[in-house]
Amino acid sequence: MEIMKVLGRMVCTQRVAGLGHMNLRILENNKGKKLVAVDPVGAREGNWVFTSSGSAARFACPNPEVQTDLTIGGIIDYWEND
Amino acid sequence: MEIMKVLGRMVCTQRVAGLGHMNLRILENNKGKKLVAVDPVGAREGNWVFTSSGSAARFACPNPEVQTDLTIGGIIDYWEND
Amino acid sequence: MEIMKVLGRMVCTQRVAGLGHMNLRILENNKGKKLVAVDPVGAREGNWVFTSSGSAARFACPNPEVQTDLTIGGIIDYWEND
Amino acid sequence: MEIMKVLGRMVCTQRVAGLGHMNLRILENNKGKKLVAVDPVGAREGNWVFTSSGSAARFACPNPEVQTDLTIGGIIDYWEND
Amino acid sequence: MEIMKVLGRMVCTQRVAGLGHMNLRILENNKGKKLVAVDPVGAREGNWVFTSSGSAARFACPNPEVQTDLTIGGIIDYWEND
Repeated sequence: MEIMKVLGRMVCTQRVAGLGHMNLRILENNKGKKLVAVDPVGAREGNWVFTSSGSAARFACPNPEVQTDLTIGGIIDYWEND
Repeated sequence: MEIMKVLGRMVCTQRVAGLGHMNLRILENNKGKKLVAVDPVGAREGNWVFTSSGSAARFACPNPEVQTDLTIGGIIDYWEND
Repeated sequence: MEIMKVLGRMVCTQRVAGLGHMNLRILENNKGKKLVAVDPVGAREGNWVFTSSGSAARFACPNPEVQTDLTIGGIIDYWEND
Repeated sequence: MEIMKVLGRMVCTQRVAGLGHMNLRILENNKGKKLVAVDPVGAREGNWVFTSSGSAARFACPNPEVQTDLTIGGIIDYWEND
Repeated sequence: MEIMKVLGRMVCTQRVAGLGHMNLRILENNKGKKLVAVDPVGAREGNWVFTSSGSAARFACPNPEVQTDLTIGGIIDYWEND
């Protein structure tokens, strides 16, 4: 799993049915790259989280056939970035 | 999911049966790399979209055994590139 | 899917049973890296092709349990490299 | 599988149900990047381990539908880093 | 599939049950990075091999639920490195 920071929400009204109404977050990884993740844990802006990618990202959702390749797995209690 | 920009269509008459007649788009990621994605949402040139990769890309298609590893998941309402 | 150029054939007599007698091609990606792909479409040296990776690579073969992680998905009609 | 070094434990009380109470470790790869992995072998700080990613990471756990994309596969008996 | 060189064996007595007694090899990719792979073909030090990653790596083993994400697929008859 990778460690990322939550930047904010993502607004995307036109999307595939496979994503349903799941919350999407914009995250930033340690190289400053912005990514989009499904959020089942309720992370907020500024939180440090860890994310699962690949097929593991789908198993974190109620429906494992959902179209996500990145899902927030948890909010880190304490993290000091390098 | 990654954030990419739609550059245009891709013409490819000679392809595997597993892709059927699905629309293919040429996308550009944040490093300027060009990639090919299946488009089930009808994105147009210049749109900012987010894409799912891996097995999630297949679940966005009617047939989850289709041969795609990159599928457009939605068109972003508003995006300002860095 | 990624865009690559076909460099030639690959000779490999000693290989796992899971690959059977499928044709193997040496491809070059946009960074000059050489990769090996299964070719079900009959691409020739100099062709520009797009490739599927991961589990999608397996679904392009008659047997989806074949041991490939990169398969040519189609030959691009026209491509002008940067 | 990749070779990584164990830096320590990771505290994360708020996480998805799919991870249960599995131990999480912070690892460092050869580029100095910190990653989070599930640890079923009991690795300790300073150990050199190898990790499996993707769907293989899930098959190392009792429940193959667990939400992990990185799992420690073993502790290396002897390793001298470059 | 990627092209790599076999550096030697890997000794790892403490490992997950999912890997059984399969032979592990240390490989080096074209960037000089060392990786660990399962070897079902009997490659020797100095051999050039190609490897399959992801779920394809598992299908090369007798048990497709084994915990490997990198498996040697074949020994290349002739290879001249750049």
